Amino acid sequence: MRELALIAQVREALGPPPDRVVVGPGDDAAVVRTGPAQAVSIDTVVEGTHFRLDTHSHADVGHLALATALSDLAAMGAPAGEAYVALVLPPRIENSEALALVASMRALADRTGTAIAGGDVTSGPVLIVTVTVNGTLADPGDAVTRAGANPGDLVGVTGTLGAAARRPEPRLEEGAALARAGVSAMIDVSDGVATDALHLAEESGVLVRIELARLPLHPGVEDPELAATGGDDYELLFTIAADRRPAAEEAAGAVGVTWLGEVAAGAGAELLGPAGEPVELRGFEHS
Amino acid sequence: MRELALIAQVREALGPPPDRVVVGPGDDAAVVRTGPAQAVSIDTVVEGTHFRLDTHSHADVGHLALATALSDLAAMGAPAGEAYVALVLPPRIENSEALALVASMRALADRTGTAIAGGDVTSGPVLIVTVTVNGTLADPGDAVTRAGANPGDLVGVTGTLGAAARRPEPRLEEGAALARAGVSAMIDVSDGVATDALHLAEESGVLVRIELARLPLHPGVEDPELAATGGDDYELLFTIAADRRPAAEEAAGAVGVTWLGEVAAGAGAELLGPAGEPVELRGFEHS
Repeated sequence: MRELALIAQVREALGPPPDRVVVGPGDDAAVVRTGPAQAVSIDTVVEGTHFRLDTHSHADVGHLALATALSDLAAMGAPAGEAYVALVLPPRIENSEALALVASMRALADRTGTAIAGGDVTSGPVLIVTVTVNGTLADPGDAVTRAGANPGDLVGVTGTLGAAARRPEPRLEEGAALARAGVSAMIDVSDGVATDALHLAEESGVLVRIELARLPLHPGVEDPELAATGGDDYELLFTIAADRRPAAEEAAGAVGVTWLGEVAAGAGAELLGPAGEPVELRGFEHS
Repeated sequence: MRELALIAQVREALGPPPDRVVVGPGDDAAVVRTGPAQAVSIDTVVEGTHFRLDTHSHADVGHLALATALSDLAAMGAPAGEAYVALVLPPRIENSEALALVASMRALADRTGTAIAGGDVTSGPVLIVTVTVNGTLADPGDAVTRAGANPGDLVGVTGTLGAAARRPEPRLEEGAALARAGVSAMIDVSDGVATDALHLAEESGVLVRIELARLPLHPGVEDPELAATGGDDYELLFTIAADRRPAAEEAAGAVGVTWLGEVAAGAGAELLGPAGEPVELRGFEHS
């Protein structure tokens, strides 16, 4: 009965949940107090697809799984609420390694105000972590979707691109502050800024223009095309009316905003070279 | 880009969500209206661990994954609300097979009033489906936990045991009605009624006594010991004050209740033979 013993250790590692979690891990379901609306995202990271255990520690994987899910809440401008974690563990993973994964996840949870309120542990051929996160909203309309960009809006991105860090930091505070600052559409950069700009453009029914030379490259990254097509940056790409530019810069705080281009009438995403000419990137299909 | 094309087909197969789902699949996160509290459960089914594709069709797997999660809500007496579905698909699974899985899941969702509000599709070595479900509660105290059984309570179970069906039916209506009828503790039968009685006893701090001869055997099942230790029945095991027995029988409706025994002061679960003597079962550790 490995699972029962491990589950007891996981429960102990998680510590007592906050008061809003009325029934925490260990019953058939968790019971939590909720507001009038919530944003919810589910994400899975799979060994061999999203990470390898010769480049990522178990603690890296726990962080990555929760950060990936929380980044989606950040992109809605929603706060972190509860997380529900399903672990698939291969027999070769020791309990101590599973607990290192959980401890790392808990450290990120504590730092972001997330309560790990429930979970499931099963066995399988590779290590897989699925995380569902939710965050309470006062009104469903407070959420920022990908669909609100308007011609004339500016296009901005937080932080720097191209790092592909093993322990990415979800931009929860910045996302919530950008929502309050009035961004019209937002998405987290998970497929590369070029592809994610296209997703945003498609949902909004607009043309998004990005000047390659303006991309804020992470220290050590030299090629803007790589920074445009590389994924897993966990920064926030957003659009906002031009007169709200100072409010967005204030909202991003120390993480900073870089202004990449603008929204126009049309369809798809355009990447522009130094003379304003459209650039074709390998691995990116503009529509 | 198999995933993008498949995701579009999945979104189409899911159809438009109900009004309470303000932002459905396709954005960074779903946005849903919620009540003052909710019950939430996350469950994973893994190929090779919980099912095999030579005994289960893809449609069976979709049903099983959602039914497993919904059964946990039923055991809290909570209604079905939204489901969030993470699929890990090996390359050998055809898109048509993945869509058959989703269609079967949607059929169960429609029948139970569940809205599939979000999801994630990734690739991996075997087929894995993780489902998070929630259900809105008017008050957190409306949820029935495993922890409320009292000495003198009767022990009941819905339906029949030992079927281990490929398409189990979550007892959502019966669970909600039993909660209204005043059950003191409840758990769904997933590990076998003997083990689940022990879980309930441990959380409640009582002794649960079950008479083996009373177990309601599914047609074709002859051995009560197998029915006691076999899992995956998805029936509801509950305790209730003796004077509420008629209310519980009415709550279970056509599914029916069988009275198995009683709660006493003490600790653990006891299975009793025909002369009232304790019975030791293989595969069951009473405490």
